[in-house]
Amino acid sequence: MEVLIINGPNLNLLGKREPDVYGNESFESYLDTLRKDYPQIKIDYYQSNSEGAIIDKIHEVGFSIDGIILNAGAYTHTSLAISDAIAAISSPVIEVHISNIHAREAIRHHSFIAKNCKGSICGFGLNSYKLALQSFC
Amino acid sequence: MEVLIINGPNLNLLGKREPDVYGNESFESYLDTLRKDYPQIKIDYYQSNSEGAIIDKIHEVGFSIDGIILNAGAYTHTSLAISDAIAAISSPVIEVHISNIHAREAIRHHSFIAKNCKGSICGFGLNSYKLALQSFC
Amino acid sequence: MEVLIINGPNLNLLGKREPDVYGNESFESYLDTLRKDYPQIKIDYYQSNSEGAIIDKIHEVGFSIDGIILNAGAYTHTSLAISDAIAAISSPVIEVHISNIHAREAIRHHSFIAKNCKGSICGFGLNSYKLALQSFC
Amino acid sequence: MEVLIINGPNLNLLGKREPDVYGNESFESYLDTLRKDYPQIKIDYYQSNSEGAIIDKIHEVGFSIDGIILNAGAYTHTSLAISDAIAAISSPVIEVHISNIHAREAIRHHSFIAKNCKGSICGFGLNSYKLALQSFC
Amino acid sequence: MEVLIINGPNLNLLGKREPDVYGNESFESYLDTLRKDYPQIKIDYYQSNSEGAIIDKIHEVGFSIDGIILNAGAYTHTSLAISDAIAAISSPVIEVHISNIHAREAIRHHSFIAKNCKGSICGFGLNSYKLALQSFC
Amino acid sequence: MEVLIINGPNLNLLGKREPDVYGNESFESYLDTLRKDYPQIKIDYYQSNSEGAIIDKIHEVGFSIDGIILNAGAYTHTSLAISDAIAAISSPVIEVHISNIHAREAIRHHSFIAKNCKGSICGFGLNSYKLALQSFC
Amino acid sequence: MEVLIINGPNLNLLGKREPDVYGNESFESYLDTLRKDYPQIKIDYYQSNSEGAIIDKIHEVGFSIDGIILNAGAYTHTSLAISDAIAAISSPVIEVHISNIHAREAIRHHSFIAKNCKGSICGFGLNSYKLALQSFC
Amino acid sequence: MEVLIINGPNLNLLGKREPDVYGNESFESYLDTLRKDYPQIKIDYYQSNSEGAIIDKIHEVGFSIDGIILNAGAYTHTSLAISDAIAAISSPVIEVHISNIHAREAIRHHSFIAKNCKGSICGFGLNSYKLALQSFC
Amino acid sequence: MEVLIINGPNLNLLGKREPDVYGNESFESYLDTLRKDYPQIKIDYYQSNSEGAIIDKIHEVGFSIDGIILNAGAYTHTSLAISDAIAAISSPVIEVHISNIHAREAIRHHSFIAKNCKGSICGFGLNSYKLALQSFC
Amino acid sequence: MEVLIINGPNLNLLGKREPDVYGNESFESYLDTLRKDYPQIKIDYYQSNSEGAIIDKIHEVGFSIDGIILNAGAYTHTSLAISDAIAAISSPVIEVHISNIHAREAIRHHSFIAKNCKGSICGFGLNSYKLALQSFC
Amino acid sequence: MEVLIINGPNLNLLGKREPDVYGNESFESYLDTLRKDYPQIKIDYYQSNSEGAIIDKIHEVGFSIDGIILNAGAYTHTSLAISDAIAAISSPVIEVHISNIHAREAIRHHSFIAKNCKGSICGFGLNSYKLALQSFC
Amino acid sequence: MEVLIINGPNLNLLGKREPDVYGNESFESYLDTLRKDYPQIKIDYYQSNSEGAIIDKIHEVGFSIDGIILNAGAYTHTSLAISDAIAAISSPVIEVHISNIHAREAIRHHSFIAKNCKGSICGFGLNSYKLALQSFC
Repeated sequence: MEVLIINGPNLNLLGKREPDVYGNESFESYLDTLRKDYPQIKIDYYQSNSEGAIIDKIHEVGFSIDGIILNAGAYTHTSLAISDAIAAISSPVIEVHISNIHAREAIRHHSFIAKNCKGSICGFGLNSYKLALQSFC
Repeated sequence: MEVLIINGPNLNLLGKREPDVYGNESFESYLDTLRKDYPQIKIDYYQSNSEGAIIDKIHEVGFSIDGIILNAGAYTHTSLAISDAIAAISSPVIEVHISNIHAREAIRHHSFIAKNCKGSICGFGLNSYKLALQSFC
Repeated sequence: MEVLIINGPNLNLLGKREPDVYGNESFESYLDTLRKDYPQIKIDYYQSNSEGAIIDKIHEVGFSIDGIILNAGAYTHTSLAISDAIAAISSPVIEVHISNIHAREAIRHHSFIAKNCKGSICGFGLNSYKLALQSFC
Repeated sequence: MEVLIINGPNLNLLGKREPDVYGNESFESYLDTLRKDYPQIKIDYYQSNSEGAIIDKIHEVGFSIDGIILNAGAYTHTSLAISDAIAAISSPVIEVHISNIHAREAIRHHSFIAKNCKGSICGFGLNSYKLALQSFC
Repeated sequence: MEVLIINGPNLNLLGKREPDVYGNESFESYLDTLRKDYPQIKIDYYQSNSEGAIIDKIHEVGFSIDGIILNAGAYTHTSLAISDAIAAISSPVIEVHISNIHAREAIRHHSFIAKNCKGSICGFGLNSYKLALQSFC
Repeated sequence: MEVLIINGPNLNLLGKREPDVYGNESFESYLDTLRKDYPQIKIDYYQSNSEGAIIDKIHEVGFSIDGIILNAGAYTHTSLAISDAIAAISSPVIEVHISNIHAREAIRHHSFIAKNCKGSICGFGLNSYKLALQSFC
Repeated sequence: MEVLIINGPNLNLLGKREPDVYGNESFESYLDTLRKDYPQIKIDYYQSNSEGAIIDKIHEVGFSIDGIILNAGAYTHTSLAISDAIAAISSPVIEVHISNIHAREAIRHHSFIAKNCKGSICGFGLNSYKLALQSFC
Repeated sequence: MEVLIINGPNLNLLGKREPDVYGNESFESYLDTLRKDYPQIKIDYYQSNSEGAIIDKIHEVGFSIDGIILNAGAYTHTSLAISDAIAAISSPVIEVHISNIHAREAIRHHSFIAKNCKGSICGFGLNSYKLALQSFC
Repeated sequence: MEVLIINGPNLNLLGKREPDVYGNESFESYLDTLRKDYPQIKIDYYQSNSEGAIIDKIHEVGFSIDGIILNAGAYTHTSLAISDAIAAISSPVIEVHISNIHAREAIRHHSFIAKNCKGSICGFGLNSYKLALQSFC
Repeated sequence: MEVLIINGPNLNLLGKREPDVYGNESFESYLDTLRKDYPQIKIDYYQSNSEGAIIDKIHEVGFSIDGIILNAGAYTHTSLAISDAIAAISSPVIEVHISNIHAREAIRHHSFIAKNCKGSICGFGLNSYKLALQSFC
Repeated sequence: MEVLIINGPNLNLLGKREPDVYGNESFESYLDTLRKDYPQIKIDYYQSNSEGAIIDKIHEVGFSIDGIILNAGAYTHTSLAISDAIAAISSPVIEVHISNIHAREAIRHHSFIAKNCKGSICGFGLNSYKLALQSFC
Repeated sequence: MEVLIINGPNLNLLGKREPDVYGNESFESYLDTLRKDYPQIKIDYYQSNSEGAIIDKIHEVGFSIDGIILNAGAYTHTSLAISDAIAAISSPVIEVHISNIHAREAIRHHSFIAKNCKGSICGFGLNSYKLALQSFC
C-alpha cells in the first residue's frame, strides 16, 4: 500500500511558524515517526507553496496510488482548482488540518476541497495525519 | 480509560434510515465491534433525540470522563446550547459525522459545536467513530 | 386507516393564545368535530413542546402509520432535526399551519420541514388540519 | 357558488412538460374530474402565460366571484404586480402548486403572492386544486 | 407578589463554568441573597437545559404569576418557540443576561425573545437578576 | 406641448383598491382636473397591466413626445425591461408614485426605473402627477 | 404661509462643488428666484453641515411652521437621528435632492428620512425645491 | 433545417437604441445578411416586448423546430417563466447577447435562462447570432 | 457619589414626541423624581442632539465621575465615534433605552455602543434610568 | 492569422476526467480536427495548471497575437490576477467553457475574467472552441 | 507650503486613550517633532469631535491650502458627509490612521473617505502623519 | 540595512499596462531613482506572477531581512496563502499599491494581507514605494 502526503503553502515552515497554532515539531521529523508507526505503508511526501504544482502532483499520482492525505493549507479556503483536481482523479483523498479550523477566523470555516474528499480530519495537531493514515488500514 | 459516545437526533435509526447516506449497520452492532477492537477503553454509549438531554449528559460526565465522542446529528448545525455545554466542561470532546457533511446541503457545512471541540472527523462512515477513539490512544 | 396529528410548541394553548392569530377554539374541541366528520379514519393526537419528544413520536409511528399531519409550530422554522426525522421514516407527512405563515414575520416564511413533507397547507385556520385529512381520502 | 381556477405560465403544457415533476395528465382532463366531484360548484377556468392578462382576469372577476384558485406558476416567485392585484380585490384567493415548491430550487421557496392569499396548498399533485376547492365547501 | 426566575441551558453550571465570563458564585447561593434582599417578593426558581421544559414552565405559571425573569442562555439566540411562549402568556417577562452579550460573538447579539419581553437587562453579572427584580417593585 | 401619462398594473382600480393607501378618487376623474389646470398641455393617458404593452407604448411615443409621466406600479420594483425602454428613448420620463413608497415594504424601496428617469416624485397622493406635470412648465 | 428650506452638509458649496452634478448656481441666488416666484409664501432658509444643528432647527420650527423642505445631503443616507426628528414633529417635511440619487452610487439609493417625510422629490436640479414648494400651494 | 430567432424586449429598437452599446444596424438588415450566409437553414424571426408572448412562441415551435436562438433582453435577468418554458420544450435553445453582459451592471451578470439552454454566447455584437447559428451546422 | 445622565438626539422632546412610544412625562419632571428617590447620589444631566457634543461631554467627565447613564437615542445605532469615546474613558457607562428597541425596526436591534458599556437596560419606560441608577448602589 | 488556445487547470485531463461533464475526447485529438477545419489560422496551444504560468503566457503573446481563446477552468471563478492580465494586453481574448457553467454549482456562475474578454461562449462541448475560432473569421 | 492636519473624534485623547492601540504620546507633543523635522512646511492643526465642524474646516481651507492630512477617526467608517466634503474641494487630502485598521474589527476595514482622497496611509503609529507629510515633499 | 521589494502579478507590465491607472514609467527605471535617493539602504527587487513563487521568496528572506515592501497586485484581494506567509515570518512587511484601491471596484477594497502587515500605503503612484521605504528610515 502506498499513500502520498501533500502539504500546501507555508507548511514547509512547520516548527518555525506560529508555534502556538502549529506546534514546534518540523514535518520531516514527524514523518519519521509516522513511517516507523506504519511500516506496512509506503508513505511518500510532497510539499509545495504553488497551487499549480499541487494540482500537477495530484494528477501525477491520482490514478494509481492507494490514497492521498492532503493538507492544502490556505488553498483549502480559496482553491476551486485543487477541488476540481480531486474530483477528477480516482484515488481517494483525505483532507487534514493540524489546527481546528473551525476555531479560527470565519474564512477558514469553509473548505472548497472537503466536498470532493472521502473524509476530513482536523484539530489533532500533527496526529491529524496519523488518523488519516489509520483510515487506510 | 473511559470514553462516552453520544449520538444525537435520528441516529437511533441507523441501519434503518436513508441507508445510502448512513449505511445498513445499526449502531449497537457497530459498538460491539468497536469494543472488541479497543478492549483497553471502557466505551459508554448514550443516544437521545433531545437537545436538553444531551446537554444534561455532557454535564453529568464532562468533569470526570477521559473523553466524549459526539455525533450531534442535526443539532450540530442548530444548537448553540450544546456548543456552550462543550465549552463549559473540562473533558475533551471529538466531533464526528458518518457522512461527509461538506458534500451535503449548505446548512450542514457549518457546525456550531466544532469550535469548542478538540477535533473533528467526518466522512468515514461508522469508522469516523473508530478514528475518534483512536485519537485517545 | 390511521392518521396521527402532531402539534408542536405552544399549540396546547390554542383558544387561549393570541386569539386574533389562532382563533378561540381549543384543539381538543376541534378534534371532536374532525373525528365526527371523518369516522372512517382513526385520528390519533399528540402534542408536545419538546423538539426531542416530537422526534421520538415521529420515529415511533413513522414506519407503520398511514400518515402524519404535523403542525410543528415554531420548530417549523428552526428544527433541522425534525426535518431529518421526517426524511428518515416511510409514512407520508403533511405540514399544516393555522395562520398564513407567509403573511407574518420573515423568519416564519422559511420551513425547514416542508421539503421532506409530501405537501403543505396553511392559512385556513383550524380547517388546515381538515384539508390535510382530506388529502388522505 | 362560482369559483375560478387561474393557471399561470407553462401550465398549458401539463401532461406534456417535465412529467416527473408535474405528472402525465392534462389539466383539461383533470378539470372534468373536478367538475364531476363538485357538481354544486360552477368551476370556471382560465390559463395565460401573460402576467398582464392574469391581472386583467383577477380584476374582472375579483369583486363578484366566490373564490379564485390561483396557480401562478413561475410568476409566484417574480410578480409583485399579481400580488398587488390579489390585495386589491375582495374575493378570497387560494394559492396552489402541483409540486412541493419547498423541495425545489431556492428561488421557488419564496412566494410573492402568498401573503395576500387566504391560504396556500402545495405538493399534492393535481389534487392540490381539489383541496383548494374543498376549502370553499 | 410572586416572581419566577427561569434559568436556561448550562446555567446550572454557574460558579463552575467559564468563571471569567460568568463569575464564581453558584446561582443557588446568589438566590439566598436575593431572597434576603427582597423579603416582600416570593421568588420561585426553575432551571432546565431543555427548550421544551422551559416552554412547559412558562405555560404553567404564565397566566397567574406576577412576573418571570428569564435568562434563556443560548436559547435566547436560537429559540423562536420560547419567544412564542412568552408572547402567548399574560404575565410580563424580563430578559436577563449575566454577561454583556453585545461584547461577545455576533450570534449572541441577536435575541429571539427580547421583542416579546417587557424589558431586557444584561451585563451586570448576577446583579442583572436583582435589577430585574427591582423593576417589579 | 404634449405629455403622456402611463399608469401601470392595478392603477385602473384607483378609487376602488385599498383606499387607505391610494385614496377614493378614480384616475379618470383626477385627469379631468389636471387637464383643466394645465390647458396649455395636451395630456394623453394610457393604462395597462401588461409589462410588454407598457414597453410598446414607451417605444411608440418616446422619440417624439415632450415628456412621459410614468407610474409603473409594481413593475417599478421588478421590471428591468421597462427601465431599458426608458433608457432607449429620447423623451424625458418622470417617475411618480401616489403613496410614499419608502414608507411601505422593503421591496418597494428600490426602483429599477428611477435611474433612467429625469426625476422622481412620490408621496403626494394624486398630486404627484400634478407636480410632475408642473416640472414640464 | 411660512416654509423653511433646510440644506444639509456641503450644500453651502452649491455653484462651487462638482458643477457637473449640482450645477453652477449658488443656492442664495436661486432662493431669490424662488421668493419672486412664490411671493405668497414666506420662505425661510437654514444651512448647516452639522447633524445636531439640523435636528435643533427641526425641533425649533417643527411644531409651528407650515412645512419644511429638507435636502439633508449625505445625512439622508446615514442619519437615523434626523429621521427620528422628522417623526417627532407635527409639521410636514418634503425631502428633496438636486441630483437623481438613484442614478448615483448604491449608498445614495437608500434614504433614512424618506419614510417619515410626506413626499420625496429628486432629480430636477434646483427645481426640485420649486416643485416641493409648489406642493404646499 | 429550421431555426427560430426570438428577440425580447427593446430589441426592436436595434440600430436606434443606445448605439454605443448595441451598434447602428437594425436587426432586420442583419437578418438579410444571416440568411444569405446560411442559405441551407430556414431562419424564422420573432420579436416581442411581452414575456407572455415570448413564452407562447416558445411553446408553439418548441416541440418541432430544430433550434431556437433566444436573446431575451432584460427578461434574461428577471424571467423565471421563460426559463421554465425552455425547460418544458424539446428543441434546443441557444442564449445570445449582443453586448458582453458581464461588463455591464451586476444585475445583468445573472441569467435566469442560461441553465436551461444548451449553450450561451455573448459579446460579439450582432455576430453572436451568427455564432449561435453556426453551432447548429 | 456622582453620576451623569446623558440623553442623545430628540430626547429633549420627551413628553411631546410620539407619546405612544415614549410616554407623556418630560425628562426634567422625571429627573426630579429620580433625585428624590436617590438623595445619596448627585445626579447631573446633559442633553444634546449633536454627536460631537456628546463625545466632548463623555471626555470631560469620563476620567473622574463615578458613572455615566447614556441614552444615545438614534446615535446608538449609527455612532462608532461615541462607542470609541466610551472605550476611551475610565468611568463605567450604562446604556439605557426607554422603549424596547428589540420590538422596533431592525436597525434599532443593533447597538454600536453596547459592547463598550458595562451593561444595558431597555424597555422599562423612564424607569430604565432608575434601574441603571440602582446598579450603582 | 495566429490564435493561441490557453487551457487552464485540470483541462490536461480531458477525455479522462468526469466524462459525463467534459466528454471522452482528449484535447490534443480535438486540436487536430480544429487545425484541419481552419487551415488558414495558425492555432497555437498552451496548457498549464498554474495561475502564474497562464499570466506569463498571456503577457508573452498578448501584445502581438491576433487573438487568445481562453478556457481558464476553475481559475475563471477565482483569479482576479488573470482577469487583470487580460485587461493589460492588447490582443482580444475569447472566454470559452466546455460545459454550461450556468447549469452547475453557484460558484461557477460568476466569471472574474468575462468582463475583460471580448466575448464569452459556453455549453457547446469542445465545439465552444470552434465557435470561438469562428469568431475570428 | 502649508498643510493642515485634521484629527477627528477621540484623537484629542491620544496618549491617554487605549495606549496599547494608540501609544503614549500626546498629539501636541508629536506635532512639535513634526514641525522640527519639516521646517519648510507650515503645519496647521485642528481637532474636533464633531462631524459638522470637520466639514466646516475642510470647506474653509480646501480651496487654498496645499494639502490636508486627515485622520477622521471613527467618522472614517460612518461619514458620507465628510467624504462628500473631500470630493467637493480642490486641495488634495491624505487619509491617515495610527493603527492598522485592517487588523481591527470588520467595521474599521471600510473607509467612506478613502475613495476621494489622493492616498491612504495606516499602521505606522504616529509616523503615519510623517509619511503623509513626506508625500507632499 | 536591506529591504526587498516584491511585486506581484502584472506589475512586470508597468509603464506598458493601463497607463491611465498605473502611469508610464517602468518599475526598473523607478528602481534606479529609489536606489539613488536611498543610498544607505540595499534595495533588492523580485517580481513574479506566481502566488507560490511569491510565498517561496517571502520564506527565503523573511527571517533575516530588515523589511519587505510588498505590492501583491491582484493577489492582495484573493490570496490567503500569501497573508499566511507574512504572518509566519519575522521581518516586517509594508503593503503598497500604486493606485488608490479604494477608488476602484469593490473587490479591490478588501485586502487579505493588510492585517498581517505592519502598515499599508496606497494611492501615491510609484511614490507609494518611496514612502514605504521612508518608513524604514
